[in-house]
Amino acid sequence: MSISASSGDFEILPATDDAHGGVIIDLKEPMDSEIFVTLLRTSLSQWKKQEKCGVWIKLPTALVNLVETAVKEGFGYHHAEPNYLMLVYWIIPETSCTIPPNASHRVRVGGLVLNDNKEVLVVQEKRGIFHETGLWKIPTGIVEAGEELSAAVVREAKEETGIDTEFVELLAFRHAHNSFFGKSELYFLCMLRPLSTDIKKQDLEIDAAKWMPFEEYAARPITEPFKYEIELCLAKLERSYAGFSPRPISSYYKEELSYLYLNSHDLDKSSKSFEVFRS
Amino acid sequence: MSISASSGDFEILPATDDAHGGVIIDLKEPMDSEIFVTLLRTSLSQWKKQEKCGVWIKLPTALVNLVETAVKEGFGYHHAEPNYLMLVYWIIPETSCTIPPNASHRVRVGGLVLNDNKEVLVVQEKRGIFHETGLWKIPTGIVEAGEELSAAVVREAKEETGIDTEFVELLAFRHAHNSFFGKSELYFLCMLRPLSTDIKKQDLEIDAAKWMPFEEYAARPITEPFKYEIELCLAKLERSYAGFSPRPISSYYKEELSYLYLNSHDLDKSSKSFEVFRS
Repeated sequence: MSISASSGDFEILPATDDAHGGVIIDLKEPMDSEIFVTLLRTSLSQWKKQEKCGVWIKLPTALVNLVETAVKEGFGYHHAEPNYLMLVYWIIPETSCTIPPNASHRVRVGGLVLNDNKEVLVVQEKRGIFHETGLWKIPTGIVEAGEELSAAVVREAKEETGIDTEFVELLAFRHAHNSFFGKSELYFLCMLRPLSTDIKKQDLEIDAAKWMPFEEYAARPITEPFKYEIELCLAKLERSYAGFSPRPISSYYKEELSYLYLNSHDLDKSSKSFEVFRS
Repeated sequence: MSISASSGDFEILPATDDAHGGVIIDLKEPMDSEIFVTLLRTSLSQWKKQEKCGVWIKLPTALVNLVETAVKEGFGYHHAEPNYLMLVYWIIPETSCTIPPNASHRVRVGGLVLNDNKEVLVVQEKRGIFHETGLWKIPTGIVEAGEELSAAVVREAKEETGIDTEFVELLAFRHAHNSFFGKSELYFLCMLRPLSTDIKKQDLEIDAAKWMPFEEYAARPITEPFKYEIELCLAKLERSYAGFSPRPISSYYKEELSYLYLNSHDLDKSSKSFEVFRS
Protein backbone atom coordinates (compact mmCIF):
# COMPACT_ATOMS: atom_id res chain seq x y z
CA MET A 1 0.00 0.00 0.00
CA SER A 2 1.29 3.41 -0.92
CA ILE A 3 2.02 5.68 2.01
CA SER A 4 2.19 8.85 -0.02
CA ALA A 5 0.21 10.65 -2.67
CA SER A 6 1.44 12.03 -5.93
CA SER A 7 1.07 15.72 -6.72
CA GLY A 8 2.54 16.48 -10.10
CA ASP A 9 6.15 15.31 -10.21
CA PHE A 10 6.75 14.74 -6.52
CA GLU A 11 5.28 12.82 -3.67
CA ILE A 12 3.41 14.48 -0.83
CA LEU A 13 1.65 13.06 2.24
CA PRO A 14 -1.89 11.75 1.72
CA ALA A 15 -4.28 14.44 2.95
CA THR A 16 -7.86 15.58 2.59
CA ASP A 17 -9.20 19.12 2.58
CA ASP A 18 -11.17 20.29 5.59
CA ALA A 19 -14.14 22.68 5.43
CA HIS A 20 -12.11 25.71 6.53
CA GLY A 21 -9.32 25.96 3.98
CA GLY A 22 -6.98 23.52 5.70
CA VAL A 23 -5.80 19.97 5.10
CA ILE A 24 -5.85 16.87 7.30
CA ILE A 25 -3.10 14.26 7.17
CA ASP A 26 -4.54 11.00 8.44
CA LEU A 27 -1.69 8.49 8.55
CA LYS A 28 -2.53 4.89 9.25
CA GLU A 29 0.38 2.83 7.91
CA PRO A 30 3.75 2.67 9.68
CA MET A 31 6.31 5.15 8.29
CA ASP A 32 9.97 5.76 8.94
CA SER A 33 10.54 9.17 10.51
CA GLU A 34 13.18 10.13 7.91
CA ILE A 35 10.81 9.43 5.03
CA PHE A 36 8.11 11.29 6.99
CA VAL A 37 10.17 14.46 7.45
CA THR A 38 11.07 14.62 3.75
CA LEU A 39 7.46 14.12 2.66
CA LEU A 40 6.21 16.57 5.30
CA ARG A 41 8.53 19.36 4.11
CA THR A 42 7.57 18.81 0.46
CA SER A 43 3.90 18.72 1.41
CA LEU A 44 4.03 21.90 3.50
CA SER A 45 5.77 23.77 0.72
CA GLN A 46 3.11 22.57 -1.74
CA TRP A 47 0.23 23.56 0.59
CA LYS A 48 1.77 26.99 1.17
CA LYS A 49 1.68 27.56 -2.60
CA GLN A 50 -1.95 26.46 -2.58
CA GLU A 51 -2.63 29.00 0.21
CA LYS A 52 -3.92 26.40 2.63
CA CYS A 53 -4.14 27.90 6.11
CA GLY A 54 -4.01 25.07 8.67
CA VAL A 55 -2.49 21.61 8.52
CA TRP A 56 -3.65 18.83 10.85
CA ILE A 57 -1.80 15.56 11.48
CA LYS A 58 -3.69 12.75 13.15
CA LEU A 59 -1.22 10.19 14.46
CA PRO A 60 -2.52 6.89 15.83
CA THR A 61 -0.63 5.60 18.88
CA ALA A 62 1.21 3.08 16.66
CA LEU A 63 2.84 6.02 14.81
CA VAL A 64 4.26 7.60 17.98
CA ASN A 65 7.69 7.53 16.30
CA LEU A 66 6.59 10.52 14.17
CA VAL A 67 5.48 12.79 17.03
CA GLU A 68 8.91 14.26 17.76
CA THR A 69 9.55 14.91 14.06
CA ALA A 70 6.23 16.72 13.63
CA VAL A 71 6.89 18.93 16.66
CA LYS A 72 10.41 19.75 15.43
CA GLU A 73 8.90 20.79 12.07
CA GLY A 74 6.72 23.33 13.89
CA PHE A 75 3.55 21.39 14.71
CA GLY A 76 1.88 21.82 18.09
CA TYR A 77 -0.41 19.55 20.06
CA HIS A 78 -4.11 20.17 19.57
CA HIS A 79 -5.73 17.31 21.46
CA ALA A 80 -5.28 13.63 22.23
CA GLU A 81 -7.60 10.71 22.75
CA PRO A 82 -6.51 7.25 23.98
CA ASN A 83 -5.95 6.03 20.40
CA TYR A 84 -4.44 9.06 18.68
CA LEU A 85 -2.67 12.42 18.96
CA MET A 86 -3.80 15.38 16.84
CA LEU A 87 -1.16 17.95 15.92
CA VAL A 88 -1.72 21.21 14.10
CA TYR A 89 0.32 23.80 12.21
CA TRP A 90 -0.83 27.27 11.21
CA ILE A 91 0.70 27.74 7.79
CA ILE A 92 0.32 31.48 7.16
CA PRO A 93 2.20 33.35 9.90
CA GLU A 94 0.88 36.79 8.95
CA THR A 95 -2.77 35.84 9.57
CA SER A 96 -4.52 35.18 12.85
CA CYS A 97 -4.86 31.56 13.77
CA THR A 98 -8.54 30.55 13.72
CA ILE A 99 -8.04 26.97 14.82
CA PRO A 100 -10.90 26.06 17.15
CA PRO A 101 -9.90 25.08 20.69
CA ASN A 102 -10.16 21.61 22.13
CA ALA A 103 -13.14 20.42 24.18
CA SER A 104 -13.29 22.47 27.38
CA HIS A 105 -15.98 20.90 29.52
CA ARG A 106 -16.84 17.70 31.23
CA VAL A 107 -20.56 17.05 31.73
CA ARG A 108 -22.08 15.21 34.69
CA VAL A 109 -25.66 14.29 35.49
CA GLY A 110 -27.44 13.56 38.74
CA GLY A 111 -30.75 11.70 38.92
CA LEU A 112 -33.33 12.60 41.58
CA VAL A 113 -35.52 9.47 41.55
CA LEU A 114 -38.62 9.90 43.70
CA ASN A 115 -41.20 7.12 44.07
CA ASP A 116 -44.89 7.26 44.99
CA ASN A 117 -44.05 6.67 48.65
CA LYS A 118 -42.04 9.91 48.63
CA GLU A 119 -38.77 8.02 48.88
CA VAL A 120 -35.57 9.12 47.15
CA LEU A 121 -33.14 6.64 45.56
CA VAL A 122 -29.74 7.20 47.21
CA VAL A 123 -26.30 5.60 47.13
CA GLN A 124 -23.04 5.64 49.07
CA GLU A 125 -19.95 5.77 46.87
CA LYS A 126 -16.90 3.53 47.25
CA ARG A 127 -14.46 6.12 45.93
CA GLY A 128 -13.99 9.85 45.66
CA ILE A 129 -14.35 12.71 48.07
CA PHE A 130 -17.60 11.43 49.63
CA HIS A 131 -16.39 7.91 50.34
CA GLU A 132 -15.05 8.67 53.81
CA THR A 133 -18.00 10.82 54.80
CA GLY A 134 -20.67 8.13 54.43
CA LEU A 135 -22.83 10.64 52.57
CA TRP A 136 -26.03 9.30 51.02
CA LYS A 137 -26.41 10.99 47.66
CA ILE A 138 -28.36 10.64 44.44
CA PRO A 139 -26.82 8.59 41.58
CA THR A 140 -24.47 10.68 39.44
CA GLY A 141 -22.11 10.10 36.57
CA ILE A 142 -20.27 11.38 33.55
CA VAL A 143 -22.06 12.03 30.24
CA GLU A 144 -20.11 10.53 27.37
CA ALA A 145 -19.44 12.40 24.15
CA GLY A 146 -22.34 11.63 21.82
CA GLU A 147 -24.71 10.71 24.64
CA GLU A 148 -27.92 12.59 25.36
CA LEU A 149 -28.31 14.04 28.88
CA SER A 150 -31.64 12.32 29.45
CA ALA A 151 -30.22 8.97 28.33
CA ALA A 152 -27.07 9.40 30.43
CA VAL A 153 -28.92 10.03 33.67
CA VAL A 154 -31.23 7.05 33.13
CA ARG A 155 -28.16 4.88 32.35
CA GLU A 156 -26.31 6.01 35.49
CA ALA A 157 -29.29 5.36 37.78
CA LYS A 158 -29.65 1.89 36.26
CA GLU A 159 -25.92 1.10 36.48
CA GLU A 160 -25.54 2.17 40.10
CA THR A 161 -28.79 0.83 41.53
CA GLY A 162 -30.45 -1.49 38.98
CA ILE A 163 -33.56 0.72 39.01
CA ASP A 164 -35.25 1.47 35.67
CA THR A 165 -36.39 5.07 35.31
CA GLU A 166 -37.78 7.53 32.81
CA PHE A 167 -36.67 11.11 32.39
CA VAL A 168 -39.11 13.72 33.68
CA GLU A 169 -37.37 17.09 33.64
CA LEU A 170 -34.12 18.96 34.02
CA LEU A 171 -34.49 20.90 37.27
CA ALA A 172 -31.29 22.99 37.20
CA PHE A 173 -27.63 22.85 36.29
CA ARG A 174 -24.41 23.95 37.92
CA HIS A 175 -21.41 25.43 36.15
CA ALA A 176 -18.13 24.96 38.01
CA HIS A 177 -14.53 25.58 37.05
CA ASN A 178 -11.09 24.03 37.54
CA SER A 179 -12.68 20.70 38.21
CA PHE A 180 -10.50 18.45 36.07
CA PHE A 181 -7.12 19.29 34.49
CA GLY A 182 -8.16 22.95 34.38
CA LYS A 183 -11.37 22.14 32.48
CA SER A 184 -14.84 23.26 33.53
CA GLU A 185 -17.80 21.12 34.46
CA LEU A 186 -21.53 21.33 33.84
CA TYR A 187 -23.64 19.27 36.23
CA PHE A 188 -27.27 18.71 35.22
CA LEU A 189 -29.73 17.81 37.97
CA CYS A 190 -32.57 15.72 36.52
CA MET A 191 -35.82 14.45 37.94
CA LEU A 192 -36.57 10.80 37.11
CA ARG A 193 -39.64 8.63 37.60
CA PRO A 194 -38.89 5.07 38.78
CA LEU A 195 -40.23 2.20 36.67
CA SER A 196 -39.05 -0.56 39.01
CA THR A 197 -38.55 -0.98 42.75
CA ASP A 198 -35.98 -3.70 43.47
CA ILE A 199 -32.48 -2.37 44.02
CA LYS A 200 -29.48 -4.32 42.66
CA LYS A 201 -26.49 -2.18 43.48
CA GLN A 202 -23.36 -2.11 41.37
CA ASP A 203 -20.31 -3.41 43.28
CA LEU A 204 -17.47 -1.55 41.60
CA GLU A 205 -18.30 2.02 42.60
CA ILE A 206 -21.20 1.73 45.03
CA ASP A 207 -21.04 0.70 48.70
CA ALA A 208 -24.78 0.77 49.35
CA ALA A 209 -28.03 1.85 47.72
CA LYS A 210 -31.53 2.27 49.16
CA TRP A 211 -34.81 4.14 49.07
CA MET A 212 -34.69 6.90 51.69
CA PRO A 213 -37.84 8.73 52.90
CA PHE A 214 -37.77 12.26 51.50
CA GLU A 215 -38.04 13.75 55.02
CA GLU A 216 -34.88 11.89 56.03
CA TYR A 217 -33.16 12.86 52.75
CA ALA A 218 -34.02 16.53 53.33
CA ALA A 219 -32.93 16.41 56.98
CA ARG A 220 -29.42 15.02 56.36
CA PRO A 221 -26.64 17.25 57.72
CA ILE A 222 -25.51 18.65 54.37
CA THR A 223 -24.32 21.96 53.03
CA GLU A 224 -24.28 23.53 49.61
CA PRO A 225 -24.23 22.50 46.85
CA PHE A 226 -26.64 19.73 47.91
CA LYS A 227 -29.24 21.86 49.66
CA TYR A 228 -30.67 23.15 46.41
CA GLU A 229 -31.51 19.58 45.36
CA ILE A 230 -33.92 19.39 48.30
CA GLU A 231 -35.44 22.78 47.61
CA LEU A 232 -35.95 22.03 43.92
CA CYS A 233 -37.44 18.65 44.71
CA LEU A 234 -39.86 20.28 47.16
CA ALA A 235 -40.81 22.95 44.64
CA LYS A 236 -41.39 20.24 42.05
CA LEU A 237 -43.51 18.16 44.42
CA GLU A 238 -45.69 21.17 45.08
CA ARG A 239 -46.08 21.46 41.28
CA SER A 240 -44.88 25.03 41.42
CA TYR A 241 -41.60 24.59 39.56
CA ALA A 242 -41.05 24.27 35.81
CA GLY A 243 -37.63 23.04 34.73
CA PHE A 244 -36.39 22.40 31.20
CA SER A 245 -37.53 19.47 29.09
CA PRO A 246 -36.03 18.24 25.81
CA ARG A 247 -37.53 18.59 22.32
CA PRO A 248 -35.92 17.07 19.26
CA ILE A 249 -35.00 19.62 16.60
CA SER A 250 -33.30 19.32 13.24
CA SER A 251 -29.85 20.64 12.54
CA TYR A 252 -28.66 22.97 9.80
CA TYR A 253 -25.84 20.78 8.59
CA LYS A 254 -26.62 17.15 9.29
CA GLU A 255 -29.42 14.63 9.36
CA GLU A 256 -29.08 13.78 13.03
CA LEU A 257 -31.55 15.41 15.42
CA SER A 258 -30.29 17.38 18.35
CA TYR A 259 -32.18 18.24 21.54
CA LEU A 260 -33.37 21.62 22.67
CA TYR A 261 -33.94 21.94 26.43
CA LEU A 262 -36.43 24.64 27.41
CA ASN A 263 -39.31 25.54 29.68
CA SER A 264 -42.01 23.64 27.77
CA HIS A 265 -44.55 24.39 30.47
CA ASP A 266 -44.35 28.13 29.88
CA LEU A 267 -43.96 27.89 26.13
CA ASP A 268 -46.97 25.63 25.66
CA LYS A 269 -49.27 27.97 27.58
CA SER A 270 -47.98 30.90 25.52
CA SER A 271 -50.46 32.34 23.04
CA LYS A 272 -48.43 31.31 20.01
CA SER A 273 -47.74 27.62 19.66
CA PHE A 274 -44.18 26.47 19.27
CA GLU A 275 -45.42 24.16 16.52
CA VAL A 276 -46.18 27.15 14.27
CA PHE A 277 -42.45 27.67 13.98
CA ARG A 278 -41.64 24.07 13.17
CA SER A 279 -43.08 23.96 9.66
CA MET B 1 19.03 20.98 39.27
CA SER B 2 18.29 17.36 40.01
CA ILE B 3 16.01 15.62 37.56
CA SER B 4 15.25 12.68 39.77
CA ALA B 5 14.19 11.97 43.29
CA SER B 6 15.78 9.59 45.74
CA SER B 7 13.73 6.74 47.19
CA GLY B 8 15.85 4.70 49.50
CA ASP B 9 18.93 3.46 47.69
CA PHE B 10 17.92 4.25 44.11
CA GLU B 11 16.71 7.13 42.02
CA ILE B 12 13.15 7.41 40.77
CA LEU B 13 11.36 10.09 38.76
CA PRO B 14 10.08 13.10 40.70
CA ALA B 15 6.36 12.58 41.29
CA THR B 16 3.56 13.71 43.53
CA ASP B 17 0.63 11.67 44.81
CA ASP B 18 -2.80 12.42 43.37
CA ALA B 19 -6.03 12.22 45.37
CA HIS B 20 -7.04 8.83 43.97
CA GLY B 21 -4.13 6.55 44.84
CA GLY B 22 -2.04 7.44 41.80
CA VAL B 23 1.11 9.46 41.13
CA ILE B 24 1.80 12.33 38.74
CA ILE B 25 5.18 12.76 37.06
CA ASP B 26 5.52 16.41 36.11
CA LEU B 27 8.80 16.75 34.20
CA LYS B 28 10.03 20.23 33.40
CA GLU B 29 13.77 19.93 32.77
CA PRO B 30 15.20 18.39 29.58
CA MET B 31 16.08 14.71 29.96
CA ASP B 32 17.79 12.20 27.74
CA SER B 33 15.39 9.44 26.69
CA GLU B 34 17.80 6.69 27.79
CA ILE B 35 18.06 8.13 31.29
CA PHE B 36 14.29 8.57 31.26
CA VAL B 37 13.54 4.94 30.41
CA THR B 38 15.84 3.65 33.17
CA LEU B 39 14.30 5.96 35.76
CA LEU B 40 10.78 5.19 34.54
CA ARG B 41 11.24 1.43 34.90
CA THR B 42 12.71 1.77 38.40
CA SER B 43 9.92 4.16 39.34
CA LEU B 44 7.13 1.91 38.03
CA SER B 45 8.53 -1.07 39.89
CA GLN B 46 8.69 1.01 43.07
CA TRP B 47 5.10 2.31 42.65
CA LYS B 48 3.81 -1.19 41.99
CA LYS B 49 5.26 -2.26 45.35
CA GLN B 50 3.54 0.75 46.92
CA GLU B 51 0.26 -0.41 45.31
CA LYS B 52 -0.25 2.82 43.41
CA CYS B 53 -2.96 2.37 40.79
CA GLY B 54 -2.46 4.97 38.07
CA VAL B 55 0.64 6.83 36.86
CA TRP B 56 0.36 10.11 34.96
CA ILE B 57 3.17 11.73 32.97
CA LYS B 58 2.76 15.36 31.98
CA LEU B 59 5.24 16.16 29.19
CA PRO B 60 5.63 19.78 28.09
CA THR B 61 6.16 20.23 24.33
CA ALA B 62 9.90 20.75 24.91
CA LEU B 63 10.14 17.18 26.21
CA VAL B 64 8.60 15.63 23.08
CA ASN B 65 11.68 13.40 22.84
CA LEU B 66 10.27 11.31 25.72
CA VAL B 67 6.83 10.64 24.19
CA GLU B 68 7.84 7.60 22.15
CA THR B 69 9.68 6.08 25.13
CA ALA B 70 6.68 6.50 27.41
CA VAL B 71 4.34 4.88 24.87
CA LYS B 72 6.74 1.98 24.35
CA GLU B 73 6.78 1.44 28.13
CA GLY B 74 3.00 1.01 28.06
CA PHE B 75 1.68 4.54 28.59
CA GLY B 76 -1.32 5.75 26.59
CA TYR B 77 -2.44 9.24 25.61
CA HIS B 78 -4.96 10.81 27.95
CA HIS B 79 -5.27 14.35 26.61
CA ALA B 80 -3.20 17.14 25.10
CA GLU B 81 -3.25 20.91 25.30
CA PRO B 82 -1.12 23.20 23.11
CA ASN B 83 1.69 23.24 25.68
CA TYR B 84 1.75 19.66 26.96
CA LEU B 85 0.80 16.03 26.43
CA MET B 86 -0.65 13.96 29.29
CA LEU B 87 0.02 10.23 29.26
CA VAL B 88 -1.36 7.67 31.64
CA TYR B 89 -0.63 4.09 32.72
CA TRP B 90 -2.91 1.82 34.72
CA ILE B 91 -0.54 -0.02 36.97
CA ILE B 92 -2.67 -2.89 38.33
CA PRO B 93 -3.86 -5.01 35.39
CA GLU B 94 -6.28 -7.12 37.43
CA THR B 95 -8.38 -4.14 38.57
CA SER B 96 -10.75 -2.01 36.51
CA CYS B 97 -9.29 1.22 35.26
CA THR B 98 -11.04 4.16 36.92
CA ILE B 99 -9.17 6.89 35.12
CA PRO B 100 -11.63 9.68 34.35
CA PRO B 101 -12.14 10.48 30.67
CA ASN B 102 -10.98 13.64 28.97
CA ALA B 103 -13.22 16.67 28.45
CA SER B 104 -16.07 15.65 26.15
CA HIS B 105 -17.92 18.84 25.34
CA ARG B 106 -17.45 22.18 23.73
CA VAL B 107 -19.73 24.95 24.99
CA ARG B 108 -21.07 27.81 22.86
CA VAL B 109 -23.26 30.77 23.75
CA GLY B 110 -25.55 32.94 21.67
CA GLY B 111 -26.72 36.38 22.78
CA LEU B 112 -30.21 37.60 21.90
CA VAL B 113 -29.80 41.36 22.44
CA LEU B 114 -33.09 43.20 22.16
CA ASN B 115 -33.35 46.97 22.60
CA ASP B 116 -36.29 49.18 23.61
CA ASN B 117 -37.17 49.78 19.94
CA LYS B 118 -37.72 46.02 19.55
CA GLU B 119 -34.59 45.66 17.45
CA VAL B 120 -32.31 42.61 17.60
CA LEU B 121 -28.51 42.88 17.37
CA VAL B 122 -27.41 40.73 14.40
CA VAL B 123 -24.18 39.98 12.55
CA GLN B 124 -23.00 38.38 9.32
CA GLU B 125 -20.00 36.09 9.75
CA LYS B 126 -16.88 36.14 7.57
CA ARG B 127 -16.14 32.45 7.97
CA GLY B 128 -17.85 29.15 8.62
CA ILE B 129 -20.94 27.51 7.21
CA PHE B 130 -23.07 30.69 7.21
CA HIS B 131 -20.57 32.89 5.42
CA GLU B 132 -21.80 32.12 1.90
CA THR B 133 -25.47 32.29 2.85
CA GLY B 134 -25.49 35.92 3.98
CA LEU B 135 -27.45 34.86 7.04
CA TRP B 136 -28.02 37.54 9.69
CA LYS B 137 -27.65 35.85 13.07
CA ILE B 138 -27.18 36.73 16.71
CA PRO B 139 -23.60 36.98 18.09
CA THR B 140 -22.28 33.58 19.14
CA GLY B 141 -19.01 32.20 20.39
CA ILE B 142 -17.10 29.58 22.31
CA VAL B 143 -17.06 29.55 26.13
CA GLU B 144 -13.54 29.14 27.41
CA ALA B 145 -12.62 26.69 30.18
CA GLY B 146 -12.96 28.62 33.44
CA GLU B 147 -15.33 31.21 32.01
CA GLU B 148 -18.89 31.69 33.25
CA LEU B 149 -21.68 31.36 30.66
CA SER B 150 -23.13 34.77 31.47
CA ALA B 151 -19.70 36.40 31.19
CA ALA B 152 -18.90 34.59 27.94
CA VAL B 153 -22.04 35.73 26.14
CA VAL B 154 -21.55 39.36 27.22
CA ARG B 155 -17.90 39.14 26.04
CA GLU B 156 -18.85 37.69 22.65
CA ALA B 157 -21.52 40.34 21.99
CA LYS B 158 -19.00 43.05 22.89
CA GLU B 159 -16.20 41.53 20.78
CA GLU B 160 -18.29 41.07 17.65
CA THR B 161 -20.35 44.29 17.77
CA GLY B 162 -18.87 46.67 20.34
CA ILE B 163 -22.19 46.72 22.20
CA ASP B 164 -22.14 46.57 26.02
CA THR B 165 -24.79 44.31 27.49
CA GLU B 166 -25.96 42.76 30.73
CA PHE B 167 -27.12 39.18 31.16
CA VAL B 168 -30.87 38.74 31.68
CA GLU B 169 -31.67 35.07 31.43
CA LEU B 170 -30.82 31.74 29.86
CA LEU B 171 -33.74 30.94 27.57
CA ALA B 172 -32.84 27.41 26.45
CA PHE B 173 -29.93 25.22 25.46
CA ARG B 174 -29.23 22.77 22.69
CA HIS B 175 -27.30 19.52 23.01
CA ALA B 176 -25.77 18.30 19.75
CA HIS B 177 -23.33 15.54 18.95
CA ASN B 178 -20.42 14.84 16.62
CA SER B 179 -19.85 18.53 16.24
CA PHE B 180 -16.09 18.69 16.62
CA PHE B 181 -13.59 15.80 16.50
CA GLY B 182 -16.36 13.49 17.72
CA LYS B 183 -17.06 15.66 20.76
CA SER B 184 -20.49 16.97 21.73
CA GLU B 185 -21.62 20.56 21.99
CA LEU B 186 -23.87 22.46 24.37
CA TYR B 187 -25.19 25.74 22.98
CA PHE B 188 -26.75 28.13 25.49
CA LEU B 189 -29.17 30.75 24.17
CA CYS B 190 -29.11 33.81 26.43
CA MET B 191 -31.16 36.98 26.54
CA LEU B 192 -29.14 40.16 27.01
CA ARG B 193 -30.11 43.77 27.69
CA PRO B 194 -28.11 46.35 25.70
CA LEU B 195 -26.29 49.05 27.69
CA SER B 196 -25.03 50.97 24.63
CA THR B 197 -26.27 51.61 21.09
CA ASP B 198 -23.34 52.39 18.77
CA ILE B 199 -22.09 49.39 16.86
CA LYS B 200 -18.34 48.96 16.27
CA LYS B 201 -18.00 45.65 14.47
CA GLN B 202 -14.99 43.41 14.77
CA ASP B 203 -13.15 42.97 11.45
CA LEU B 204 -11.57 39.56 11.83
CA GLU B 205 -14.68 37.38 11.98
CA ILE B 206 -17.57 39.72 11.24
CA ASP B 207 -18.63 41.06 7.82
CA ALA B 208 -21.43 43.29 9.07
CA ALA B 209 -23.41 44.07 12.23
CA LYS B 210 -26.63 46.02 12.73
CA TRP B 211 -29.82 46.45 14.72
CA MET B 212 -32.64 44.62 12.88
CA PRO B 213 -36.33 45.21 13.65
CA PHE B 214 -37.69 42.15 15.44
CA GLU B 215 -40.42 41.69 12.78
CA GLU B 216 -37.73 41.49 10.09
CA TYR B 217 -35.61 39.16 12.24
CA ALA B 218 -38.59 36.85 12.78
CA ALA B 219 -39.55 36.93 9.08
CA ARG B 220 -36.13 35.87 7.72
CA PRO B 221 -36.25 32.71 5.58
CA ILE B 222 -34.74 30.38 8.16
CA THR B 223 -35.23 26.84 9.30
CA GLU B 224 -34.52 25.01 12.50
CA PRO B 225 -32.53 25.31 14.69
CA PHE B 226 -33.00 29.08 14.45
CA LYS B 227 -36.79 29.21 14.55
CA TYR B 228 -36.93 28.49 18.26
CA GLU B 229 -34.90 31.63 18.95
CA ILE B 230 -37.77 33.67 17.56
CA GLU B 231 -40.43 31.77 19.46
CA LEU B 232 -38.54 32.05 22.74
CA CYS B 233 -37.92 35.74 22.18
CA LEU B 234 -41.63 36.27 21.53
CA ALA B 235 -42.60 34.29 24.62
CA LYS B 236 -40.15 36.33 26.67
CA LEU B 237 -41.45 39.64 25.27
CA GLU B 238 -44.94 38.63 26.30
CA ARG B 239 -43.53 37.98 29.80
CA SER B 240 -44.93 34.49 29.71
CA TYR B 241 -41.64 32.58 29.65
CA ALA B 242 -39.30 31.88 32.57
CA GLY B 243 -35.84 30.65 31.64
CA PHE B 244 -32.96 29.84 33.97
CA SER B 245 -30.97 32.47 35.84
CA PRO B 246 -27.71 32.02 37.74
CA ARG B 247 -27.23 32.03 41.53
CA PRO B 248 -23.81 31.78 43.12
CA ILE B 249 -23.44 28.77 45.41
CA SER B 250 -20.54 27.46 47.42
CA SER B 251 -18.72 24.27 46.61
CA TYR B 252 -18.00 21.24 48.80
CA TYR B 253 -14.32 21.10 48.08
CA LYS B 254 -13.02 24.56 47.27
CA GLU B 255 -13.39 28.22 48.11
CA GLU B 256 -14.42 29.34 44.67
CA LEU B 257 -18.15 29.90 44.07
CA SER B 258 -19.88 28.09 41.25
CA TYR B 259 -23.15 29.05 39.56
CA LEU B 260 -26.45 27.25 39.74
CA TYR B 261 -28.81 27.98 36.81
CA LEU B 262 -32.46 27.44 37.63
CA ASN B 263 -35.98 28.81 37.22
CA SER B 264 -35.72 31.57 39.82
CA HIS B 265 -39.10 32.91 38.86
CA ASP B 266 -40.87 29.72 39.92
CA LEU B 267 -38.67 29.06 42.91
CA ASP B 268 -39.09 32.53 44.37
CA LYS B 269 -42.87 32.32 44.25
CA SER B 270 -42.73 28.90 45.89
CA SER B 271 -44.04 28.76 49.48
CA LYS B 272 -40.65 27.88 50.94
CA SER B 273 -37.89 30.33 50.31
CA PHE B 274 -34.68 29.11 48.74
CA GLU B 275 -32.86 31.21 51.32
CA VAL B 276 -33.98 28.89 54.11
CA PHE B 277 -31.66 26.31 52.65
CA ARG B 278 -28.68 28.60 52.31
CA SER B 279 -27.88 29.02 56.02
